[in-house]
Amino acid sequence: MNPVIDLLKSHRSIRKFRPEPVDQETVNQLVAAGQSAATSSFIQACTVIQVDDPEVRGQLMECTGGQVYVGSAPRFLVFCADMHRHQIACTMHDAEMRSGFTEQFLTASLDCALFAQNVVVAAESAGLGTVYIGGIRNQIQRVAELLELPELVYPVFGLCLGFPDQDPETKPRLPLESVLKHERYDDSQEREIIAAYDEEIREYYRTRTGGNKEMSWSEQISGMLVKEARPHMMDFLNSRGFLKK
Amino acid sequence: MNPVIDLLKSHRSIRKFRPEPVDQETVNQLVAAGQSAATSSFIQACTVIQVDDPEVRGQLMECTGGQVYVGSAPRFLVFCADMHRHQIACTMHDAEMRSGFTEQFLTASLDCALFAQNVVVAAESAGLGTVYIGGIRNQIQRVAELLELPELVYPVFGLCLGFPDQDPETKPRLPLESVLKHERYDDSQEREIIAAYDEEIREYYRTRTGGNKEMSWSEQISGMLVKEARPHMMDFLNSRGFLKK
Repeated sequence: MNPVIDLLKSHRSIRKFRPEPVDQETVNQLVAAGQSAATSSFIQACTVIQVDDPEVRGQLMECTGGQVYVGSAPRFLVFCADMHRHQIACTMHDAEMRSGFTEQFLTASLDCALFAQNVVVAAESAGLGTVYIGGIRNQIQRVAELLELPELVYPVFGLCLGFPDQDPETKPRLPLESVLKHERYDDSQEREIIAAYDEEIREYYRTRTGGNKEMSWSEQISGMLVKEARPHMMDFLNSRGFLKK
Repeated sequence: MNPVIDLLKSHRSIRKFRPEPVDQETVNQLVAAGQSAATSSFIQACTVIQVDDPEVRGQLMECTGGQVYVGSAPRFLVFCADMHRHQIACTMHDAEMRSGFTEQFLTASLDCALFAQNVVVAAESAGLGTVYIGGIRNQIQRVAELLELPELVYPVFGLCLGFPDQDPETKPRLPLESVLKHERYDDSQEREIIAAYDEEIREYYRTRTGGNKEMSWSEQISGMLVKEARPHMMDFLNSRGFLKK
């Protein structure tokens, strides 16, 4: 359709990077592009922590269960949902902030994601590769302590950044008819749609792994969802002042 | 830096649209671009509902407290965080899905935001304007009923889409030094940074409103945060199977 849409559609995660550094001016430009994303009621609730210290990077890597690129990528950014800045703004006007609402947790988290996605698009437009690291939430308490995050700030995800040293295929997405619905939520054809997509994903893994992995989308998803999903999250977020009501 | 970053930095919300339609093929392309965004563990937890029916659009407008562009924009999309599709996937393998985890609510919501931001960037690259509509969460229960959303699906935000009939300025963002921190969260200069930014925003409103509005960022934020923030959200989300643990 146009070069920007082509760029968006060519996205794939990059987990292997060339050693070339990404200079600070580039990082600043990417973050500025992130800031330009829409923000709910102008709250601007995203703060990025750029971690260069190899010692801390090593510890963050441990927190993710040993994802080596967290330690070795030229740059690593942690996107934090931040309502602490708003607490300071309230103090400046002797206003008593009402915090802890689920809505605030949601808007701050969404702000971060819109911001981060702009950073990713900007990075890819500059020839860089990225991978989001949700794995920092495996040990989110330890990550928050490492980065000295105050109350009302939590680390949403990390992002590795660097020049790609691999060229993986894009991964086929669900059929449009599953994802774009008209007027109302209609799932009457959903099983059939998923079954057809399952074959596509099975084939994708088969060719990509030389036959070593054969798994459909629904198999992968159901295998994941019979397990607990980071059951510590609610307690952690509560302890940081989020999701109290 | 490059045309894509220029595009990202030129973002502003558009609330007034020319009557020209946005054809279905374009919407499909934008949604496909959205699908290409990263997705946590391949869950692909975003479903878009395209609402064209003027009757429903009118009701959605009411839900937002009368934001007219919700009714009048050439296209209106509702981005839903969707774990219902995963429930179907589990059923296909006789697997018992463990749902209700905070982590699942978060990843599904983030998936939606990454997806939607790609749609916005794609739209702007095609000369379209957009505005996110968080206001659908004012009456989120009614929105969920209007769109016939099943359990484990909730409407995150809406998006108006059309060719711009206004050309507003971009809104200055927080200084980079507030938003990009190095190695750890350091807020020792935060009050001073906010105070300087406050002057910039005051001036922005002054020139933009012909002197009718004079408000700093911290005033605006503190005025908002002394109030409750959609206090019905936790109960609503619980009733839909989210945030139970």
